[in-house]
Amino acid sequence: MPKIHNQGLVAEGLATPDPASDERVTCAVLIIGDEILSGRTQDTNLRDIARYLGVIGVDLAEARTVPDVLDEIVDALNALRARYDYVITTGGIGPTHDDITADAVARAFKVKLHEHPEIIAMMKARWAGELNEARRRMARVPVGGQLVKNPVQGPPGFTIGNVFTLAGVPQVMRGMLEDVGPRMRGGRPTVSRTVRVEGSGEGVIAAPLEAVARAHPDMSLGSYPFYGDGKFGSNLVVRGRDPDQLAGVVDELIAALKGAGIDNVREVEVA
Amino acid sequence: MPKIHNQGLVAEGLATPDPASDERVTCAVLIIGDEILSGRTQDTNLRDIARYLGVIGVDLAEARTVPDVLDEIVDALNALRARYDYVITTGGIGPTHDDITADAVARAFKVKLHEHPEIIAMMKARWAGELNEARRRMARVPVGGQLVKNPVQGPPGFTIGNVFTLAGVPQVMRGMLEDVGPRMRGGRPTVSRTVRVEGSGEGVIAAPLEAVARAHPDMSLGSYPFYGDGKFGSNLVVRGRDPDQLAGVVDELIAALKGAGIDNVREVEVA
Repeated sequence: MPKIHNQGLVAEGLATPDPASDERVTCAVLIIGDEILSGRTQDTNLRDIARYLGVIGVDLAEARTVPDVLDEIVDALNALRARYDYVITTGGIGPTHDDITADAVARAFKVKLHEHPEIIAMMKARWAGELNEARRRMARVPVGGQLVKNPVQGPPGFTIGNVFTLAGVPQVMRGMLEDVGPRMRGGRPTVSRTVRVEGSGEGVIAAPLEAVARAHPDMSLGSYPFYGDGKFGSNLVVRGRDPDQLAGVVDELIAALKGAGIDNVREVEVA
Repeated sequence: MPKIHNQGLVAEGLATPDPASDERVTCAVLIIGDEILSGRTQDTNLRDIARYLGVIGVDLAEARTVPDVLDEIVDALNALRARYDYVITTGGIGPTHDDITADAVARAFKVKLHEHPEIIAMMKARWAGELNEARRRMARVPVGGQLVKNPVQGPPGFTIGNVFTLAGVPQVMRGMLEDVGPRMRGGRPTVSRTVRVEGSGEGVIAAPLEAVARAHPDMSLGSYPFYGDGKFGSNLVVRGRDPDQLAGVVDELIAALKGAGIDNVREVEVA
């Protein structure tokens, strides 16, 4: 089973994060699949990719979900790969007729598809005489593309240019992601800390929160209200790349909230 | 509590779906929020909106997720509202400084924001002397906009042109959605049926599935593999707007699968 990445957990074995770097490295996600847009399937890949990227210091800057329509995939991919450092696609790399992501990536890069000899060799070892046309579809990779390892099940993904093409099945996607991070030029990892306010609504939290946010424009301060089980309040999340600065801002935020008469305030661990 | 819509469930009280219509009505979703792109929050609004729209015959054609950055929201909104019949935005309508969706919608439509008198009246009734600046932020609506009812908690959403601006908190978003459907020009509702294949992988299913799909280009046929608990196989979902044609295609698909030697095939109900 692949490791599941969470915010605050440092990924093992990745050589690329550079804590001394101040450069922002960006990535977009392109989710491909009618099943997401029909509401049949709940996507969870976006969250998993976001958490994985956060740990290696890459900012997830935008996500798009498009149907299994060639031109839609090509247009979205070209828009995203021109704008961001990296693009990760999920979905549409299986053996059926609606799996057209490889075709779309090849079209976007204006290259042909070929059957990758390593994948064909893996397939022959696994399926031997049962290696039919549908399965051979999964061996198709844009010319010039490199494989992305699949430690879970089935054939690998691939990468070409600044695009990584991964499976849509979450377990497989997460496994493939392990082979994506080490190929990215990681920025400085983002760290986050959470201050929980109970018994006060956003209406009273907003003023002190905004004052602290305005004083630190290079940090991200967000307010995420909760209610239910007889409780209400908000989790205030501070994110930034400098752990020392972050600690200072958390102290400042707690002081500002208490100064505004909000007393039920404490820092919490978030899974 | 609002009703939660599911595929196959007919929404009550909606006057707009027109079963005789062959016109395709499209909608895009714009998810606004750093918390989704950081991986902190798992979005579920997209799936709920997709299912709601499916029932009233509106196709969810694309979704985008953007950060809490004014220009990003404005650009995405303008791209989507020009291309699709409707756009639904979620998130960023609370009282804190990072809630800038109303500003972005006003900017996109090139109108000013004003404090909506109905919202101010509701707020005065609820908060009286505690109606501070932060809470007043939630009364801001683009000039010319109409309110979208909020049956759950807090102030209403709004609509202007072909854009509906809803809350990000899922319970509130679903509640507001009840007041969106009746304002949409619904197309013919899409219906779906699911054929479950157990013990055969996509590699062998692909050929008969593709043959049936090619014979019916106006239907949507998707294959969604599953495995785990010692079982594997695929759910084949057929979607279309004509229930009689759909029934015929399901029969044809089952016959094609059996003709290819795949025997563990049955139609299933999907929640």
